[in-house]
Amino acid sequence: MNEKNLQVVLASRPAAAAGESDFRFVEAAVPDLREGDFLVRVDWLSLDPYMRGRMNEGKSYAARVELGEVMVGGAVGTVVSSRHGGFAEGDKVLGSFGWQRFAVSDGKGVMKLPDPRLPETVWLGAAGMPGITAWMGLGQVGSPRPGETVVVSAASGAVGSVAGQLAKIAGCRAVGIAGGAAKCEHAVKALGFDECIDYKAGPIDAALKAAAPGGVDVYFDNVGGAILDAVLRRVNTGARIPLCGLIAGYDGADIPIRNVFSLLVNRVRLQGFIVSDRMDLWPAAMRELAGHVAAGRIRYHETVAHGLENAPRAFLGMLRGENLGKQLVKVS
Amino acid sequence: MNEKNLQVVLASRPAAAAGESDFRFVEAAVPDLREGDFLVRVDWLSLDPYMRGRMNEGKSYAARVELGEVMVGGAVGTVVSSRHGGFAEGDKVLGSFGWQRFAVSDGKGVMKLPDPRLPETVWLGAAGMPGITAWMGLGQVGSPRPGETVVVSAASGAVGSVAGQLAKIAGCRAVGIAGGAAKCEHAVKALGFDECIDYKAGPIDAALKAAAPGGVDVYFDNVGGAILDAVLRRVNTGARIPLCGLIAGYDGADIPIRNVFSLLVNRVRLQGFIVSDRMDLWPAAMRELAGHVAAGRIRYHETVAHGLENAPRAFLGMLRGENLGKQLVKVS
Repeated sequence: MNEKNLQVVLASRPAAAAGESDFRFVEAAVPDLREGDFLVRVDWLSLDPYMRGRMNEGKSYAARVELGEVMVGGAVGTVVSSRHGGFAEGDKVLGSFGWQRFAVSDGKGVMKLPDPRLPETVWLGAAGMPGITAWMGLGQVGSPRPGETVVVSAASGAVGSVAGQLAKIAGCRAVGIAGGAAKCEHAVKALGFDECIDYKAGPIDAALKAAAPGGVDVYFDNVGGAILDAVLRRVNTGARIPLCGLIAGYDGADIPIRNVFSLLVNRVRLQGFIVSDRMDLWPAAMRELAGHVAAGRIRYHETVAHGLENAPRAFLGMLRGENLGKQLVKVS
Repeated sequence: MNEKNLQVVLASRPAAAAGESDFRFVEAAVPDLREGDFLVRVDWLSLDPYMRGRMNEGKSYAARVELGEVMVGGAVGTVVSSRHGGFAEGDKVLGSFGWQRFAVSDGKGVMKLPDPRLPETVWLGAAGMPGITAWMGLGQVGSPRPGETVVVSAASGAVGSVAGQLAKIAGCRAVGIAGGAAKCEHAVKALGFDECIDYKAGPIDAALKAAAPGGVDVYFDNVGGAILDAVLRRVNTGARIPLCGLIAGYDGADIPIRNVFSLLVNRVRLQGFIVSDRMDLWPAAMRELAGHVAAGRIRYHETVAHGLENAPRAFLGMLRGENLGKQLVKVS
């Protein structure tokens, strides 16, 4: 193959906020395929907050990215050549191909796109890892019952948007929390949240009380920090808090939980979870989510950066909340 | 009846640490019995940390004690006269009779002592509310599996001592945390904990690492605060934390959870629980615990204050950790 591979590798571990200098672009040869491998041209790269954790020295959900290694990331691509019996040239595939134009795979953890009728990017969003994350946290930890109130932070994001819509499908009142009027308007008008609170407009306590007058039964938390404490002031007895992410602390900020008594007094179940722990549930989740998307019950918005060259900037912008919905990079 | 009743009522709500002046002694007439009531002479009063929460203005597990009201408390007593079909003079009964010498009851929430072969105080301790608390938190939230490591704070206390021994019965390694060398020695030598860490001897991190070299699978937490954070640094993936009490914060100290990332990264389930939420489980728990006590598999130690006059002092001492094991007041 004559084409060169372009890769984004981790150049340095961020001391606090990550910056563009923490990434480095590398040109590499596309290797020859060994028997059992196939070559994927990456079409769409998914950018997700968890990647920030992989850049750190310490233990994250999974193995960190080492310095000089290609940044991890889910992607949708096209098989361009194959010496693997299960994958043929032209196959559209979903896998952890990383921040690069081409990836060699032995098929492990790779699947063909399950349903060609849906847009291929949906498998990186509402019917992919972020959607499954929402499905799993809400289903396995949140267990919402009809009539309950479900609060979702980062409500307009790839995970939160699905969590809120699944709460509505479950017959719950869905209250979003998001940064800025535009995101909140999107959450209510496009995604169907009952209400959405703009945390950038000031402390959320009064707005939360108004939006969840009967208290909070489930809090799907993507952010941690002061917002988690505010919600803890409004939780009902027996509330469940699927702890999905801690964006507020990803750059090293101290984000203690201060309202610890609420956990005890209200018998709260607070549970961290990682979507990759239950790969056995992914097929069922993807089927269900794809069905919701196809039926229009789950909607989504995408923000697309064009070209792998723009991946770091798009990623950093996403961490600052500059995107709306699912952040993607159109690579090829 | 000619005898006067002596009662301990809540005189004021403590601003920080509770003191003797927050209690007041009241002499009252023992009322005549109405049809359906019976009169109990309180023999043993149980003193428990949860009572501190009931003294506060704010929401606690259950209704607070109002100013001028008799302090709540479980007790063992003897029926001295009865106009109730189900209870006769001489019956030994267990109920929430409060901090007083005599209590009138309609039988609601009162049971006859289930097994006369056991010492009657066991129903206030290892086979009573504190033991059931340990049983419930460990069983319903902790779910220890053989070979796992269970850490218990306030390990020599009425709840912690049972939690640790139940962990041993479940085939786990039991590591206690307690204040002072004497309590730790008691936990290991009398109760059978594998190890016990004296938190008063300094930061517990190194000792915890040594005592739980394979990490912590279950942390039965009675105290919260810095000890919870230290344990969060050592939890294994999928750890469970039954949150039973927050003694470190009962006097108003700020006790944030700082190690929030551990909850996420290690997929920790942290769950507050209150033993009175599941009264349906009490009979089975009492049977099981009484069986363990009768067989010598669960041991316990009692600290007894003599006379209701000494109840406030004993209670305050217990909150400071001055007792060993179950704190009781011999009332009559």
